[in-house]
Amino acid sequence: MPRIDAERLLSDLQRLRAIGALGRGVVRPAFSAPDMEARQWLKRRYAEASLEATIDGVGNVLGRSRQAGKALLIGSHSDTQPTGGWLDGALGVIYALEVVRALAADSETRALPVDAVSFQDEESRFVGCLGSRSLTGALAPEMEHGAADSHGVALEDALREAGLASVPRLRLSRERYTGFIEAHIEQGPHLEDAGLRIGVVTGIVGLRSIRFIFRGQQNHAGTTMMTRRRDASTALYELAHRIHLEFPKVAAERSVWTMGRVRVEPNATSIVPGYAELDLQFRDQSEAPLDAFEAIAARLVSEMNARGGVTIEAIPTRAPIAPTRMDPALQMHIEAAAERHAPGKWQRMPSGAFHDAGIISASIPSAMLFIPSLGGISHDFAEDSREEDIVLGCQVLADAAASILLTASARQ
Amino acid sequence: MPRIDAERLLSDLQRLRAIGALGRGVVRPAFSAPDMEARQWLKRRYAEASLEATIDGVGNVLGRSRQAGKALLIGSHSDTQPTGGWLDGALGVIYALEVVRALAADSETRALPVDAVSFQDEESRFVGCLGSRSLTGALAPEMEHGAADSHGVALEDALREAGLASVPRLRLSRERYTGFIEAHIEQGPHLEDAGLRIGVVTGIVGLRSIRFIFRGQQNHAGTTMMTRRRDASTALYELAHRIHLEFPKVAAERSVWTMGRVRVEPNATSIVPGYAELDLQFRDQSEAPLDAFEAIAARLVSEMNARGGVTIEAIPTRAPIAPTRMDPALQMHIEAAAERHAPGKWQRMPSGAFHDAGIISASIPSAMLFIPSLGGISHDFAEDSREEDIVLGCQVLADAAASILLTASARQ
Repeated sequence: MPRIDAERLLSDLQRLRAIGALGRGVVRPAFSAPDMEARQWLKRRYAEASLEATIDGVGNVLGRSRQAGKALLIGSHSDTQPTGGWLDGALGVIYALEVVRALAADSETRALPVDAVSFQDEESRFVGCLGSRSLTGALAPEMEHGAADSHGVALEDALREAGLASVPRLRLSRERYTGFIEAHIEQGPHLEDAGLRIGVVTGIVGLRSIRFIFRGQQNHAGTTMMTRRRDASTALYELAHRIHLEFPKVAAERSVWTMGRVRVEPNATSIVPGYAELDLQFRDQSEAPLDAFEAIAARLVSEMNARGGVTIEAIPTRAPIAPTRMDPALQMHIEAAAERHAPGKWQRMPSGAFHDAGIISASIPSAMLFIPSLGGISHDFAEDSREEDIVLGCQVLADAAASILLTASARQ
Repeated sequence: MPRIDAERLLSDLQRLRAIGALGRGVVRPAFSAPDMEARQWLKRRYAEASLEATIDGVGNVLGRSRQAGKALLIGSHSDTQPTGGWLDGALGVIYALEVVRALAADSETRALPVDAVSFQDEESRFVGCLGSRSLTGALAPEMEHGAADSHGVALEDALREAGLASVPRLRLSRERYTGFIEAHIEQGPHLEDAGLRIGVVTGIVGLRSIRFIFRGQQNHAGTTMMTRRRDASTALYELAHRIHLEFPKVAAERSVWTMGRVRVEPNATSIVPGYAELDLQFRDQSEAPLDAFEAIAARLVSEMNARGGVTIEAIPTRAPIAPTRMDPALQMHIEAAAERHAPGKWQRMPSGAFHDAGIISASIPSAMLFIPSLGGISHDFAEDSREEDIVLGCQVLADAAASILLTASARQ
C-alpha cells in the first residue's frame, strides 16, 4: 500500500498557509489576491505531480490524472473565512496532492487515476460552494446573478478582477469518476472529547434559515411612553428568547440552532428602534426536527403578530439544504483504512458543518473523513490539529483511495 | 404687557432653518460650517437687538442686555442632530431674540434686562450640553479630553477648525441672573394627545444607562452542540426579554426604558457569537424607580452569571443624570401667562428628554415651557409644530419674562 511523505505533506501545508497568513491565521477569501495566488501555486504543484492542471472560470483548480480508467476525485477548498484558520479546507486540498504523489511513487498503485481539486468559495463570500455547484451544474443563474459580498462587491466584478471573466467553466463528468472523497478537520469537539483520531462521515446535516424582520416605529427614548411604543428590538428579544425556550422540546440529539446575526436600526442608545432583523439557522441530520423548528417559529411569529404593535415577517434566507447520506461503499474503504492505521481510534459520525461533498454527492458517490480539531475550534485564527493526526489522516486517505481504485479496477 | 411680532418671529425661524437646510430638515451639527454660520448670523441678530453679543471659546452665543438690574436668561441651542428637525432647539433660540425685541418695544418693559443665549452641542456630537456645562463650570476636563464624534473627529480639532481654539470661554455669573427659561418643542405626543397648547415643565427626568457585556465562546454553528455552547447572543436575548418582563412591576407612570443598541460579534448567521453588548437606558422623574430598575438589572445579571457559561458584566456607560426640579416661582409666572393666552389649554408636565435647563438649573433658578410637536415626532426631518402654537408659545414666554422681571424689580 502507498506510503505518504509526512515531511512533504506538512511542508506543503505550511507553504499554502503562508499565502495570506496573518498571525496564526489565514486571510484568503475567495477571489482575493492571496486566494488567486494560492490557486496558481496549487496549479503548479499539480503539474509537478504530473496532473493536467486547470483553473476554470469560477476559480476551481482541477488536476486531472493522465492514467486510464475510472478516477477517484479527492479535494476540498483553499478559500478561507474572512479571518480563517490555517487548516479548514486547505488540509483536504494538500491531502489530495499528497495522495496523488504517494500513489505515483508506489509500483502497485502507480497506474491508479486520482484527480485533485480545490473548489472555489466554499466559505460563502459570494455564493456558498460556488465552485462545486458550478462543477455539478447546481449553480442556478439566479444564485449567481446579483451576488455580492458583505462589502457590496459584486461576484461579477470579482471574477473580472481575478481575470476569470472569459475563462471556460468546467463540468464534472459522472462517467469519469468512481467517487469523491473530501478530508477535512472536524471543526467540532467530538473526536477530541472521545479520544479518537479519525471520523468517517455518515452524512451531512440539513440546514434551513429564516430571517425575521421586525417593523415598528422609531421614536425618542425619553418622550415616548412605554404603552405607545412599537419597539422593534423588544419584539426581537422576545422572539429570540422564546425560540431558545421552545426548540429544545422538539430537538433531536444533535439538532443545533443559532441566532448569530442581528441588526437594529438606528442602533442608538437613546432611540426606540423602528426596524430590526434576526437570522435563525437550524440544522439536523434528518428532516423531522427541521420541520418541527419551522412550525414553532411560525407559531411564535403568528402569536406575536396577533398582539399588534410590531409586525414580524419571516423570510427563508436561502434554499434549504436537505440532509445528505455519504456513500456506504466508500465509507467502508475509509473505515478499513482507519482501523488499519488507528485500530479502535475512529468512529462513524455525521458532519454538523456543510461541505462541498454535500453538493458533489448529488452527482457522484461521495464520502468524507475527519481528523480532530484542537478544542473543537474552527473559523478562527486559533484553529489547529495535532501534527500526528494530520499525518495519520492523510495516510488513511491514501490507503482508502488505493483500496477503492484497486477494487474498482479488479471489478472491470 | 409686551406684544411679540409673529411675522418677525416666523421669518427669523425660517432664516435660521435655511442655514444647513436639507429637504424639510436641517443638518447643522455642533461646529460644522452651517452651525458656525448660524452662530455668526445669530450674533449679528443679537447686536441688532442692542445686545452685547459674544461667541465664546466653546461656541456659545451670548447676547447681554445693556439694561441695569438682575437679568433673566432665555435661550436654547441652535446645533442639531446629524439629521435634525427644524424646530428642536432653534425654536427657543429665536424665541429669546423675539422676547428681547418685544420687551424693548414696550415702554413698560423697555428697561427690563433679558439676556439671550444659544448653547453649543446640546445634541452630543462631542459632549452632550457642552455649552451649558462650560458656562456653569460643569465641564470636567476629563469629559472634554479625548472627546470625539462618531466619525472619530476630535473635539480639539473641531474647536481649532471653527477658529475657537484661543477664544476665551464665558462663565455665567450667578449674581447677574434672576433665572433662566428655555422654551422647546415637546418632542413627544402628550400635549397633542390631550388637545393642549402649552406645557409648563415641572422637572426633567433623571437618566441612567448600563452597558451589559456578554463574554462567551465563538464557535461553528454547525458542529458545536447546544450543551457545549457559550453563546453570547442567547444570554443577551434572555436578559433583554426578562428586563422587559420585570421592569413594569416597579415602574412609575412615566418611567421609560430602552435597549436600542446591540452589538453581536462576529454577527454572522453561521457563527455562534462569543461576544455581545447591550445598552439599557432608563428614565424617570424620581430616583426611586431608577434605583429599582438598577436593582432588577443587577439581580438578573447575578442570577445568569451564577448559572455559568456566558459571563455578563454591567458597566454604567455615563454619569447618571439626576432628576431635576424646575423652579416653582418661575413656573408660576409661566402658568399665569399660559392661562392668560390659552385658558384651560395648558398643563404641568415633566420633560422626558434632557435639556440645557437641566444643567443650568444647578446654578440658577430655571424653568421650561413646551409647545406641541405634531405627531410627537422629533429628531427627524418630519419634525414640525402648528404655526399658531409657535406664535402662542413665544407670546406666553414674553409675558412670563416681563412678569418675572417686573416682580423681581418691584422686590428690590
